[in-house]
Amino acid sequence: MDAEALSRPKVVIVGGGFAGLTAATKLAKADVEITVLDRHNYHCFQPLLYQVATAELSPADIAWPIRHVLRKQKNVRVLLGTVSSVDLAARKVHADTVTLDFDDLILATGATHSYFGNDDWEKSAPGLKRIEDATIIRRRLLMAFERAELSDDPAERERLLTFAIVGAGPTGVELAGAIIEVARQVMPSEFRRVDLRTARVLLIEAGPRVLPAFPDALSAYTRRSLEGMGVEVMTDTRVTKVDDQGVDIEGGRLDAATVIWAAGVVASDAGRWIDAPRDRAGRVIVTKDLSVPGHPNVFVVGDTAAVTDVDGSMVPGVAPAAKQMGIYVADVIASRRREAVPPPPFKYKHQGDVATIGRRSAVVKLPYVNLEGWIAWVFWCLAHIYFLIGTRNRIAVAFKWVWDYLTFQRGARLITDQRDQI
Amino acid sequence: MDAEALSRPKVVIVGGGFAGLTAATKLAKADVEITVLDRHNYHCFQPLLYQVATAELSPADIAWPIRHVLRKQKNVRVLLGTVSSVDLAARKVHADTVTLDFDDLILATGATHSYFGNDDWEKSAPGLKRIEDATIIRRRLLMAFERAELSDDPAERERLLTFAIVGAGPTGVELAGAIIEVARQVMPSEFRRVDLRTARVLLIEAGPRVLPAFPDALSAYTRRSLEGMGVEVMTDTRVTKVDDQGVDIEGGRLDAATVIWAAGVVASDAGRWIDAPRDRAGRVIVTKDLSVPGHPNVFVVGDTAAVTDVDGSMVPGVAPAAKQMGIYVADVIASRRREAVPPPPFKYKHQGDVATIGRRSAVVKLPYVNLEGWIAWVFWCLAHIYFLIGTRNRIAVAFKWVWDYLTFQRGARLITDQRDQI
Repeated sequence: MDAEALSRPKVVIVGGGFAGLTAATKLAKADVEITVLDRHNYHCFQPLLYQVATAELSPADIAWPIRHVLRKQKNVRVLLGTVSSVDLAARKVHADTVTLDFDDLILATGATHSYFGNDDWEKSAPGLKRIEDATIIRRRLLMAFERAELSDDPAERERLLTFAIVGAGPTGVELAGAIIEVARQVMPSEFRRVDLRTARVLLIEAGPRVLPAFPDALSAYTRRSLEGMGVEVMTDTRVTKVDDQGVDIEGGRLDAATVIWAAGVVASDAGRWIDAPRDRAGRVIVTKDLSVPGHPNVFVVGDTAAVTDVDGSMVPGVAPAAKQMGIYVADVIASRRREAVPPPPFKYKHQGDVATIGRRSAVVKLPYVNLEGWIAWVFWCLAHIYFLIGTRNRIAVAFKWVWDYLTFQRGARLITDQRDQI
Repeated sequence: MDAEALSRPKVVIVGGGFAGLTAATKLAKADVEITVLDRHNYHCFQPLLYQVATAELSPADIAWPIRHVLRKQKNVRVLLGTVSSVDLAARKVHADTVTLDFDDLILATGATHSYFGNDDWEKSAPGLKRIEDATIIRRRLLMAFERAELSDDPAERERLLTFAIVGAGPTGVELAGAIIEVARQVMPSEFRRVDLRTARVLLIEAGPRVLPAFPDALSAYTRRSLEGMGVEVMTDTRVTKVDDQGVDIEGGRLDAATVIWAAGVVASDAGRWIDAPRDRAGRVIVTKDLSVPGHPNVFVVGDTAAVTDVDGSMVPGVAPAAKQMGIYVADVIASRRREAVPPPPFKYKHQGDVATIGRRSAVVKLPYVNLEGWIAWVFWCLAHIYFLIGTRNRIAVAFKWVWDYLTFQRGARLITDQRDQI
């Protein structure tokens, strides 16, 4: 950046997820100087995190350096750092590594798992939001098999081979299907003492059906499909306690050495940084142009924003919504800088819902059609390849999927971090 | 394994590296019951570790589950565990997870870096022997670039962009070439404030030339080639101290935020477990059939063994030697079990030495011919693809190499573990 650039309006984007990254790229032609600040050096493609957790893909297959993605965009710089506070009056973002002045601020710091006030459950039941979460779950999954092979105690073996997943949204469904495939199809021939085909996967849902955001017929198909694979689906079942040995449910106890949390999310801390009004999930309640009430130059987008759509419904916390918010805010900022007419209030275009269940099985809800079975599965695969960033990643992931589909293998079965070691 | 199997002679192999894994596979047809015990669940292809350290490959590209590699071999089981002691009299191996009886024992536990008595240097200057070492080095390398981008202090920037590698054997040479390529060719366009083309890579060698195991002409070529890429090669330079800010050398000081140790190795603890005679590097001095003196049923192979060849020379600590020892010991055990004539004393067949320097540049020493330049580089690439295990890995690694060769990219640039975080 040259001296002239320093006099341009400064846009600071905190967070390089779907919302932040999209906002940055959409501002490519605006006469602004953009800084993207993230605590990681990469953008993580969260929809495929469950495949890292279940040893199909490597972290680098779904996580790309933010500065590489933005390398050709001359009006943006990328910095690594964790925000400590935001000073709205002075228009400054303070991070551990740097202090940034801004004219416009976009907060796009996402969400993390919520344990509904039981934060001590996290140690026993990790969620799945970050690359580190995925490698933690992968390690626990693979270590459970290893420990079962070493154990001579039938009760302990049974506990080690029971995997409980709390929450039957898309993440819970995808994890359940992937884990039972690994246990019953991929791994059994490699173990000599323990029969992994006896492994149990429990999918525990407080509500009355799996995939509550989908139509009834697709929920019913998903349940049948999972049960056909061997998953035990437990709806209307509320978890009251989680520990290292399993979960308590109303009226009972389920022993399980591995518990994974896929039940709820809470927004990032961004609302607290700016002391803005928030909903129960910690999301900042934004105005119709996604700015913070009273601060027209401060925007909150993605999973950290509570956005009421023009029809009065709440915009869901999904990747397409985050991208649309990123595009919208870039448009607001660019039109203000050009002194053009501002865009109309943000309106979410729902493109559909997808969830994969297992080999040749998925559900897809599109505006005019619902799909299930192998055709939905093919749609799911193609859609995810399409949304990956970069040809290299598309080819690498497609190759791994085809290969492992044909051979019933999993390619990333490393137990690397020793902190959880036996 | 059935009841009959339990009465077969028990062979315990500790370590699933080149030596241990080869011994296990070569015993496939022997009437023995084999247990492979390793503290990791994977076999690591160490010759390509430097590519994980320099963000080209993912850990899973060069590390494969041992039990997957051996899945079709019915007379072997694979267990995860760390040895605590060996009782030669009772013929038992005690690990944290299990106690194993053995009739024959093969210790193949490898080597680790040696700091020549200065173990406190390890924190400042990691070596490169394990997957975890590679991701530590990758993180430091990438973090140095990130910190340089954040820094406003010219002296600090210079220190952050100086990488010192101690030891100019194949690992040091390969790291030096890969790091300067990443700094000067792959990354510069992605940074806005700092010019990564000013990065310095120092290759520090106590001896008079790089690649001391290679012929003079290939050493000279390697030095010229490295210097042509911008590496500062410092031979006859002894490091007297290492700290977080750089290294002291005789008569001077070199500031460098990243120091990597590629200077020496020491054998694993196996010699201590069995209280056997050892050389200065901790290697067990074995007899002509690779057994421990006085214990004909206990073998030490690979980098933990000090083996005198039939011509009186010492067998080098390289992968082909480890594999040959594994094959040899399997042969000794199998022939004893068949009461056949034992094989003649172990004789190492030297197949050659290879080291890659950078794009289109490598050196290869074969029994009858020496190669350098692009033809050596092609040979190096093909040989390494050939020695990978499994078609999936061969295709995946070959694809990444071709892609990144053509695009000047690196595909695994994740800073994942936060322990070293800024």
